[in-house]
Amino acid sequence: MNADHGLLEPGSHRSSGVADDAALVAAMLRVEVAWLRALASVGAIDEDDAEAVATTVAGWRPDLKQLGAETEAAGNPVVPLVGALREAIGDERLERLVHRGLTSQDVLDTGLVLIARDGLLRAREDLGTVARALAGLAERHRVTVMAGRTLTQYAVPITFGLKAAQWLSGVLDALDGVDRVVERLPVQCGGAAGTLALAQELTVDPVAAAQALADELALTWPGLPWHTRRTPVTGVGDALVTACDALGVIASDVALLSRPEVAELREGAVPGRGISSTMPHKRNPVLSILVRSAALQAPLLGAQLHVAAGLAVDERPDGAWHSEWPSLRRLLELTVTAASQAAELVSGLEVDGAAMGARVARAADDLLAERGSGGKPADYLGASSRFIDEVLARGADEGPRHG
Amino acid sequence: MNADHGLLEPGSHRSSGVADDAALVAAMLRVEVAWLRALASVGAIDEDDAEAVATTVAGWRPDLKQLGAETEAAGNPVVPLVGALREAIGDERLERLVHRGLTSQDVLDTGLVLIARDGLLRAREDLGTVARALAGLAERHRVTVMAGRTLTQYAVPITFGLKAAQWLSGVLDALDGVDRVVERLPVQCGGAAGTLALAQELTVDPVAAAQALADELALTWPGLPWHTRRTPVTGVGDALVTACDALGVIASDVALLSRPEVAELREGAVPGRGISSTMPHKRNPVLSILVRSAALQAPLLGAQLHVAAGLAVDERPDGAWHSEWPSLRRLLELTVTAASQAAELVSGLEVDGAAMGARVARAADDLLAERGSGGKPADYLGASSRFIDEVLARGADEGPRHG
Amino acid sequence: MNADHGLLEPGSHRSSGVADDAALVAAMLRVEVAWLRALASVGAIDEDDAEAVATTVAGWRPDLKQLGAETEAAGNPVVPLVGALREAIGDERLERLVHRGLTSQDVLDTGLVLIARDGLLRAREDLGTVARALAGLAERHRVTVMAGRTLTQYAVPITFGLKAAQWLSGVLDALDGVDRVVERLPVQCGGAAGTLALAQELTVDPVAAAQALADELALTWPGLPWHTRRTPVTGVGDALVTACDALGVIASDVALLSRPEVAELREGAVPGRGISSTMPHKRNPVLSILVRSAALQAPLLGAQLHVAAGLAVDERPDGAWHSEWPSLRRLLELTVTAASQAAELVSGLEVDGAAMGARVARAADDLLAERGSGGKPADYLGASSRFIDEVLARGADEGPRHG
Amino acid sequence: MNADHGLLEPGSHRSSGVADDAALVAAMLRVEVAWLRALASVGAIDEDDAEAVATTVAGWRPDLKQLGAETEAAGNPVVPLVGALREAIGDERLERLVHRGLTSQDVLDTGLVLIARDGLLRAREDLGTVARALAGLAERHRVTVMAGRTLTQYAVPITFGLKAAQWLSGVLDALDGVDRVVERLPVQCGGAAGTLALAQELTVDPVAAAQALADELALTWPGLPWHTRRTPVTGVGDALVTACDALGVIASDVALLSRPEVAELREGAVPGRGISSTMPHKRNPVLSILVRSAALQAPLLGAQLHVAAGLAVDERPDGAWHSEWPSLRRLLELTVTAASQAAELVSGLEVDGAAMGARVARAADDLLAERGSGGKPADYLGASSRFIDEVLARGADEGPRHG
Repeated sequence: MNADHGLLEPGSHRSSGVADDAALVAAMLRVEVAWLRALASVGAIDEDDAEAVATTVAGWRPDLKQLGAETEAAGNPVVPLVGALREAIGDERLERLVHRGLTSQDVLDTGLVLIARDGLLRAREDLGTVARALAGLAERHRVTVMAGRTLTQYAVPITFGLKAAQWLSGVLDALDGVDRVVERLPVQCGGAAGTLALAQELTVDPVAAAQALADELALTWPGLPWHTRRTPVTGVGDALVTACDALGVIASDVALLSRPEVAELREGAVPGRGISSTMPHKRNPVLSILVRSAALQAPLLGAQLHVAAGLAVDERPDGAWHSEWPSLRRLLELTVTAASQAAELVSGLEVDGAAMGARVARAADDLLAERGSGGKPADYLGASSRFIDEVLARGADEGPRHG
Repeated sequence: MNADHGLLEPGSHRSSGVADDAALVAAMLRVEVAWLRALASVGAIDEDDAEAVATTVAGWRPDLKQLGAETEAAGNPVVPLVGALREAIGDERLERLVHRGLTSQDVLDTGLVLIARDGLLRAREDLGTVARALAGLAERHRVTVMAGRTLTQYAVPITFGLKAAQWLSGVLDALDGVDRVVERLPVQCGGAAGTLALAQELTVDPVAAAQALADELALTWPGLPWHTRRTPVTGVGDALVTACDALGVIASDVALLSRPEVAELREGAVPGRGISSTMPHKRNPVLSILVRSAALQAPLLGAQLHVAAGLAVDERPDGAWHSEWPSLRRLLELTVTAASQAAELVSGLEVDGAAMGARVARAADDLLAERGSGGKPADYLGASSRFIDEVLARGADEGPRHG
Repeated sequence: MNADHGLLEPGSHRSSGVADDAALVAAMLRVEVAWLRALASVGAIDEDDAEAVATTVAGWRPDLKQLGAETEAAGNPVVPLVGALREAIGDERLERLVHRGLTSQDVLDTGLVLIARDGLLRAREDLGTVARALAGLAERHRVTVMAGRTLTQYAVPITFGLKAAQWLSGVLDALDGVDRVVERLPVQCGGAAGTLALAQELTVDPVAAAQALADELALTWPGLPWHTRRTPVTGVGDALVTACDALGVIASDVALLSRPEVAELREGAVPGRGISSTMPHKRNPVLSILVRSAALQAPLLGAQLHVAAGLAVDERPDGAWHSEWPSLRRLLELTVTAASQAAELVSGLEVDGAAMGARVARAADDLLAERGSGGKPADYLGASSRFIDEVLARGADEGPRHG
Repeated sequence: MNADHGLLEPGSHRSSGVADDAALVAAMLRVEVAWLRALASVGAIDEDDAEAVATTVAGWRPDLKQLGAETEAAGNPVVPLVGALREAIGDERLERLVHRGLTSQDVLDTGLVLIARDGLLRAREDLGTVARALAGLAERHRVTVMAGRTLTQYAVPITFGLKAAQWLSGVLDALDGVDRVVERLPVQCGGAAGTLALAQELTVDPVAAAQALADELALTWPGLPWHTRRTPVTGVGDALVTACDALGVIASDVALLSRPEVAELREGAVPGRGISSTMPHKRNPVLSILVRSAALQAPLLGAQLHVAAGLAVDERPDGAWHSEWPSLRRLLELTVTAASQAAELVSGLEVDGAAMGARVARAADDLLAERGSGGKPADYLGASSRFIDEVLARGADEGPRHG
């Protein structure tokens, strides 16, 4: 057991309870109960028996430490959890019903899907906040002219509103990605080797039971198990990484533009935040730095899921499956944390339009070099405003905008 | 210049012309011509001028070696290409029209998108062949009982038809992923810093010109440029990696099941294939090994695109963009090659149903241990056949199945 | 706070205390105390003052939860830790001495180095056990003939002793790598921007103080700080990944050779291990699967450290540094766990020489095809025995071999 | 065949011939000839026969396109190369001698090692140039005060000499890493399954022949083959990635410090370099951007090698080995190119000490806040100068410094 209070993952309290062992166990118990109810719904067992187990589960807090200690020998946490649950039930007939027809991977995969849904929805909420705040910035700063920069050098003028709109369009892509995977999150249900053979001993229509399990958990039933087809996992991973990508761009831009030599943006002041252990005057862009740090970690975690997916042999693989678990957990926690940090970052962002304007004035020659015909930077903004409209229209679904 | 004949990428002739420099230059020239036609379509320039340049381009073969030599100084290949094109045109007025209003990234990104589309469609065709071949196998082997294996050990019985259906369901996911990105492939069009400012000097409605550019190239116009929002690139990458994942599972399974101790599958015999430099009797599962090798490479290439995406700062980034190019190219070539190899692998796969049956008979006790009630493996297949139906129905769109 | 009991990281109790928050805090407090002693040793402060703080630290258990909550605002855990420590000291003069001259990165980097050393040494011990066990196997099975397999197919005969020797040679490489980084683990000591400017206010020779700090902690002083030169971190990472690579090969081979169709190896029987949640007869090669799973995770964690290293800008980077922390922690825990599992796996490995021999007899024609002259597999082993000698001689330093 | 002129890998002409197919074939032919000479040296064949083959090889240019076409069927390029070589020899007795006792992996691995050595040495030379140029900068700018920056904000003052020294210390680490792997590059020599069984039919002491092969090629003989122990490959990869890390830091710092708002550094002016396709005034820091781009690619390529290394099963693996080839090639080319670009970047770097000084004067309050006692930034540089000495002393081996 390694208690992690976030000393090496600053801000991880923001993802507290998303994917820790307690959340996982709760999710897996939901699956076991839902399966009994599903069996009852197709007439395979008595509804009363299902509810009796549900009642036991409702009042039961398994010993996580004990489960952890027994997980290695079993190779996964489901075996000890089912064992402990049976013990807690204390009725031999009911004990035999529990988990019957399922395999460990059914319970663990579905449990992870439930956790992933929670994490995705939490991230989604914060991404929505980010989107609304960015929409507000895009509107408010529609005509706040600033220097465009490409390959580190001055290019032509833009507006800060356009920059916010570009950030927003990345976040909207991320939201689309999250929505797409959330809608399709599947239940895992296949039994020992993905045939539902044992379930068929319990009911003439085990597929109906699988469907009922999905309904119980508000997941989709994908038509057959996916023990070795890992697109549900890699799809979640890709969506999370894409979210971190979008947030990383924002954070990296803020970090650049709040450098003292630029000083066009600044993270909102919060007492005690961004202080230095030795330099009392400093105000570090802490949220930007932490979000950026997430964007440097997420791609590797997502890649790990794909490495595993391509090696998912046999009817259940020999290590590839196991390698997914910590990567998926960590990627969920990382993204939930980063989205929450980004929401706060963007909501509190201080925009120094005067500094932007002063710089534009000083750099006008460079900014207008392309045009070649003089004029003012504010007159050389092309379709900036229309682009902002475009993104705002797309983002309008994300709810009421800030101020 | 490094001429690559495939000595370290066996089978790379299968992706010949997909993403090499010649294909890239052709694609970028298509963009330059399409832009002039787009400008003409909105009345910004004469249609005759656009066609005059188009004619020059049609009969022109730029010196790739020369372009390569000049690429570094410019930081990208568009600058020297436009320079050479202007020289080839040899008419000062027309020269000035070329590329006007665009920036290098517009041309290179759109050129890469065009290449990506070609690669995706080539991979898609081979994935379709894989799907049809798998559908045929799933049907033909619906009742071919074989040992299910989980965590390397015997589990309960399955059929080879179910295994083929599981492979197929992964390939169908991959096809969905490819289709989703192909449909949305966007044109890049923003000018120096993504405002279309210079284009607005040429036409009152530069956005209409951007839309016309998209139409010319049969791409979508995403409403605004995406110089720093790299989801179009990461989306292509994720789809390609997901395709390699699905093929990797098939290849890994074939490699396992064609081990001499198992000998239930065998790659189709092709004269000269799979021979050893020292052991004349050997028949190595070469296609499986190469496809598997692709699945071990793709995730890292896809991750590279995400690392770059999260660092896409300013109005055009300072290295992140450049780091995408070789990764995307390589990922395209790798996937096109692997899909072609997989099509051949699956189409020619030899299934030894007798060997499967003999093993099932020998291992019947283990395979039926879960059931506990005796009987025959062939009677303990649960919903296998329904699962096959499910996948076949989903895959029916992929066209007529093999015999 | 996310309490992790190992439900998603089976066997993580084996790395308990290696790199968790408590271990980190203890390490960072060691650094703070060692710095005061170092200052005392160069005459910058009174030795009594250093020892007074040391005494406070010795009897003090900071509230990790509280520290975690305050870490985000500071951007790292050192700021709140120093604050809490000062409070615990409760003597204004001593409080001012604490941490004076250091920067957060000095304390956190050195703390991580101390943790890394502990983890490396724990892994080293288990790698040593693996090495000794493999040496025993190599000797005992020097003439146990088995089929050589290349590209999944039979090649020429080998001995199991040679296979064990090959595994051993990978482990010896891993041990060399671990030893190389352990010997050179450096202290971090540079102050706010790596100049030791504040330390120079305290002593005429701040470099002597840095050297004394290194001596206190039995680390090396690398001559200057390495806030943005991350080879000490990537070097640790590469060594850990290399260890996981070597263990992954062993685990993958054991998983293959313990397949029921091969059945030449088998993990040692342990009551309750490798059982299935539904199939009571199964004995899954759990340790192999888990070690293999580690080998599928480690390379991505190591790559993350390199991504960060290449982005270590300014005098302290803007996110790259922060992204290292969880990757390094996780890589340490993963490797310590995998090494411990591998030690148990290899020590208990059951080798079925009879099965190997029977297979060799059946496959003799294939195994001898290269030779072309008949004879017996046992006569066609080339330099196998000399290769075993070679590895055993190299591994002799790793201590007494098992029986 | 995909002809690559560097349009997507700007500057790849700098690594021309390092690792392309022609270089590979030349290296593999060296191995085949060296093996015959090795056999002759131990009396297994006539020296005249070895030299006869050597003469044929010397005057022979195999058709790379043909080899490429035949590589897939064989699974590697050695089988067709040996076939073509035998044909070129046209003497049945000599033909039979060629490659006898070796396996494809012996030739390809050793060929790749030879290529890797060439690439490492070319990179080494440029890294040496970088080191000397940095040493010159460190000395010349020993007292050029500039703002230290941490987490993007002003910290305490440093000197540009110290910054150059920090860069240098990373490059010296990279050089050490390169030297360590170059010294130990091993020959691969094991025959079909790593036993030298066939070689033992040719000579009583096949190990002596392997040793002689190593001597012929100026490589080391590691005592036994390493077909499945991939540390020689991952070691090369780690060294190359570490080099790119060190160069990435320099390039990223230069890119930051040459932003127009900072303008303390500037890449040397080269006619035509860094120009924009639309903005004639621009001078983009092209070399920095390209080197930075390399640092964003290298870690993923290095990780690929480790993924493969952990899966190196059997006596030759089923795809993992094959997946190494393009990654290693690409990593070599990338690093050689980046080192050459970095050498030019650092050698031509323009340092604007006046701009640094002006900034320090303006930001003096912030830069001295830690000190709290006023004074001048130039008086608060701590051990900066001693740190420079330290690095210069370490780097002194890298040859005469620039003026």
